[in-house]
Amino acid sequence: MSDQTKYLLDESRIPKAWYNIQADLPVPAPPVLHPGTMQPVGPQDLAPLFPMTIIAQEVTTEREVEIPKEVRDIYRLWRPAPLYRAHRLEKALGTPAKIFYKYEGVSPAGSHKPNTAVPQAFYNAAEGVKRLTTETGAGQWGTSLSFAGNVFGLEVLVFQVRVSYDQKPYRRAVMETYGARCLPSPSTETEFGRSVLAQRPDHPGSLGIAISEAVELAAQRDDTKYALGSVLNHVLMHQTIIGLESMEQLHMANTEPDVVVGCTGGGSNFAGIAFPFIGQGLRGGKKARIVAVEPAACPSLTRGKYAYDFGDTGHMTPLTKMHTLGSTFTPPGFHAGGLRYHGMAPLVSHLRNLGLIEAVAYTQGECFSAGVLFARAEGIVPAPEANHAVKGAIEEALRCKREGRSETILFNLCGHGHFDMTAYQKYFSGELKDEAYDEKELAMALSGLPSVPAEYA
Amino acid sequence: MSDQTKYLLDESRIPKAWYNIQADLPVPAPPVLHPGTMQPVGPQDLAPLFPMTIIAQEVTTEREVEIPKEVRDIYRLWRPAPLYRAHRLEKALGTPAKIFYKYEGVSPAGSHKPNTAVPQAFYNAAEGVKRLTTETGAGQWGTSLSFAGNVFGLEVLVFQVRVSYDQKPYRRAVMETYGARCLPSPSTETEFGRSVLAQRPDHPGSLGIAISEAVELAAQRDDTKYALGSVLNHVLMHQTIIGLESMEQLHMANTEPDVVVGCTGGGSNFAGIAFPFIGQGLRGGKKARIVAVEPAACPSLTRGKYAYDFGDTGHMTPLTKMHTLGSTFTPPGFHAGGLRYHGMAPLVSHLRNLGLIEAVAYTQGECFSAGVLFARAEGIVPAPEANHAVKGAIEEALRCKREGRSETILFNLCGHGHFDMTAYQKYFSGELKDEAYDEKELAMALSGLPSVPAEYA
Repeated sequence: MSDQTKYLLDESRIPKAWYNIQADLPVPAPPVLHPGTMQPVGPQDLAPLFPMTIIAQEVTTEREVEIPKEVRDIYRLWRPAPLYRAHRLEKALGTPAKIFYKYEGVSPAGSHKPNTAVPQAFYNAAEGVKRLTTETGAGQWGTSLSFAGNVFGLEVLVFQVRVSYDQKPYRRAVMETYGARCLPSPSTETEFGRSVLAQRPDHPGSLGIAISEAVELAAQRDDTKYALGSVLNHVLMHQTIIGLESMEQLHMANTEPDVVVGCTGGGSNFAGIAFPFIGQGLRGGKKARIVAVEPAACPSLTRGKYAYDFGDTGHMTPLTKMHTLGSTFTPPGFHAGGLRYHGMAPLVSHLRNLGLIEAVAYTQGECFSAGVLFARAEGIVPAPEANHAVKGAIEEALRCKREGRSETILFNLCGHGHFDMTAYQKYFSGELKDEAYDEKELAMALSGLPSVPAEYA
Repeated sequence: MSDQTKYLLDESRIPKAWYNIQADLPVPAPPVLHPGTMQPVGPQDLAPLFPMTIIAQEVTTEREVEIPKEVRDIYRLWRPAPLYRAHRLEKALGTPAKIFYKYEGVSPAGSHKPNTAVPQAFYNAAEGVKRLTTETGAGQWGTSLSFAGNVFGLEVLVFQVRVSYDQKPYRRAVMETYGARCLPSPSTETEFGRSVLAQRPDHPGSLGIAISEAVELAAQRDDTKYALGSVLNHVLMHQTIIGLESMEQLHMANTEPDVVVGCTGGGSNFAGIAFPFIGQGLRGGKKARIVAVEPAACPSLTRGKYAYDFGDTGHMTPLTKMHTLGSTFTPPGFHAGGLRYHGMAPLVSHLRNLGLIEAVAYTQGECFSAGVLFARAEGIVPAPEANHAVKGAIEEALRCKREGRSETILFNLCGHGHFDMTAYQKYFSGELKDEAYDEKELAMALSGLPSVPAEYA
C-alpha cells in the first residue's frame, strides 16, 4: 500500500457540462432511420417517446452540454466518484504498469446508471411528463430510473424480463422501495406482450421484448414517455461525467492514461469512461488506446455485423447503424445481465468502424476469475459486468509486464457485486458454465437484418 | 435540495487516534470475571484468544489510542465516510429539525464492521498469528473479517449460524470471494458443535453457539486467535472513528448535535457514533441526548437485566456485567440479523446504568416503514439494522416538529441494504410479521443467569 490510493474531488468540481463526442467526430455518425419510411428521423418522429430537450441532445454537435443545477444537486449524493490507484492489484500481478480504476458503485443504485437516469427524469419532469416507462433485465437500470423518477416526482413503470422478475425478486424490491411499479415482461398490459404470450404463455422474456412493451405504452399516452438506459447518444453523453472526473483525478496523480478499458453491453459505461479521452486524442491531445471488453457469449463488437437494425424485438424502434447480432438473437443466460443485448450503441459502433477503438471478448469464467483476484487485492467485489473491464485491465497489465512497460491503465469499475453474489456462489461451486451462443442462431439472426435504401446500406 | 448535502473530509483528516471512553467514565466499568474462578480476569486469561495489543486495548484508560499507519492505509479505501444533511427527509417530515446522517455503507463490506476488522487483523498478523476464527449471523461481520484477514495474509474461518448459511448462500459467497472458509454452525469440527448436533441433528444454530465453536478452536491452537465483531471494549473503541469524523464534519456544517441516535445489537455501531459525543459531555463540553434504538423482539437494553452473564451459549467466554436477556434466550427470526444478540456491550450497559444514555425499542414493521420513507427521500436503501436508527431519528424529528424546535439530530446509517432486499420484498408483500419474543422463555432465560460472588453482584 503506497502513500496514496484514492483520488477525491471536492463537490464543487463536479463537471458543469457533459462532453459530446459528436462535436469531434472526423466523420458524422450515420443517420437514424424511421422504421416505416426508411428515411432519416426528425425530432417530430421521436416526440411521442422523448421530451424535446433529450431529442435535441440526441443530435446536437455542441461540444459541451450544460448539466442543469438540479441534476448536479442530485449527483452530489454520490459524486464526484472516487478514482483509485490499484497498488495492491499491481503488486499481485507483479506488473510495472500503473492501474487506476474509477468506481461507480458508490451511487445509491450501486452502478453508473443513475448518471443518466437523473437527467432523463429531470428533463421529463421539466416538460410536464407524469410517467416514465422503461425495460430492465437484471435490474440495474430499472433500479436507477426508479430512484431518479422518485426524486423528481414521476411515476415509473418498469417492464422486467420475466426470468429476472421471477429469479431475482430482491431486484424488484429495490425498485418498489423507490416507489416504482414493476411488471414481468411479456405482460398482458400491452398489445405486443399479449401477442408474445399468445404464442408462448411461458415465454421467459427478453430485453428486446421488454423494450417493445415500454415503447408501446409510452407512444399511446401524452403524459407518458420512455427512458432508455444505454445505446442512445444522449445516454452515452450523460455518462461522460465518468471520464471527465477521471481526467481531473488522473491529473491530481500526475499521469495520463496510455490505455482506457471499459466493458460493453449497450455501450454506456464504456462511452462514459472512454469518450472524453477519445475526444482529447481527436483534438490533437494525447491519444490513448481504447479497449472495449465484451462477453464471448454476446459479442456484438467482435462477431456482429455493422449494419442497420432495430433496437427491439417488436420492431417498433427506429433503425440505427450498429454492430449487431440481429434483433432476434438470444444470448445464453450468463450472469452479466447488463451485457446481454444484441446491439451496440451507434456511436461506439461508429468509432469502432473508424478504427478508433479496439474490442476483445472474454468468457464469463475468465471474468469471474479476474473479479475474485481483484476483490482479494482491492477489497471491492465487482458486479459481473464490471468483471469484464477488470479482466481487460489485467490483460493489459500483464502485457506491460511481458514488455517491461510502465504504462498507465485506466478502467471503469461500473458497479459493485453485492446484488449478484449468487453468481459468485455458482462460480465457486463450479456450477457456472461458459455457455456459447448458437452459431446457427447467430447466422439466422444476421440473415434477417432489415433492408435499408441503398444510400444508407 | 439545499446548497450542500454532503460533508467530505480529505483523507489526510482520517483520525490518527481512536477515542477511549474508559478515560472519561465517572465510575469505572465493573470487572470481567473468569468463568471458572469467578474472579477478575487478567491478561494471561485472555492470551489464548487475543493478541496482547488487543488485550491491552481492552483495559487501557488512555483517552487516545493511536491508529497504526497500516490500518489508516486500509481505512483509506473508503474513509473518511461521508456525512449527509438529510434535507429531503426533513422536507418529507415537515420538521424544523436539522437531520444529519453518517453513512458507513461505503465500505467494501457495505457496513461499519471493517472499522474494527481491519485493526484486529493487523494486530493479530503483527504478533505472528496465522489464522482467525469468528462467528457470523447474517454475515456482515464474517464478510468484514474475511476482507480484513485477506488484506493482512491471515486465514479466516467463519462459523455461520446454520439457518443463515442455508438461507443466504450469497453471504457465504462474499466471504469466499475474500478467500475465507465458511462452516455452518453447529458443525462437526468442534466438541461443542458435535455435542449440540448429538442432541438435535437439525439444529438451526445461534450466534451464541457459533461463538462457542469459534472460541473453542482458537483456544486449542497457538497460531489461531479469535476475533469478535462487537460487544468488547476494543471493538467499540475502534468504531469511534465514526463519531470522531462526524464531529469534524458537523463542525464544517457549523453545528453540534442535540441528539445522537444509533441502533444497538451488540452495541458497536452505536458506541462508534455516540461515545465521542458522550465523552465531550463528560469532559464539560456540550451534552447531547444519546438514544439507543433496539428491536422490540430482542430488547436487551429496555427489557433485559443488568447482570453478569456469559457471551455465548456454551459458557466458555468470561462473564461480563451487561444488559442481558439471558444466554439461552433465542429471539424470533426477524430480519435485522445484526441485532439478534442476547446481551449488550458492557460499556454501553454501564453508561445506560449511569443514566448517560436513553433506550427505546421499535418493531421491525415500524422500522421498515421508516427505512422506505428514508430511501424515497434520500436515495440510499438502509440495511434492516440501520432502519432502527432511521426510525429513532424520525421520531426525534417529529418530536421537534411538535415542539417547534430546530434541534440538530445526528444518526448513524451503519450499512446499506443491498444484501437484504428479500426482507424489503417481504415487507412489501405483507409477509413480514412483527414476531414477539416468548415472555415465558425470557423469564426462564433470566432466571438461569449465573451466580457471581457477592462483591460483584
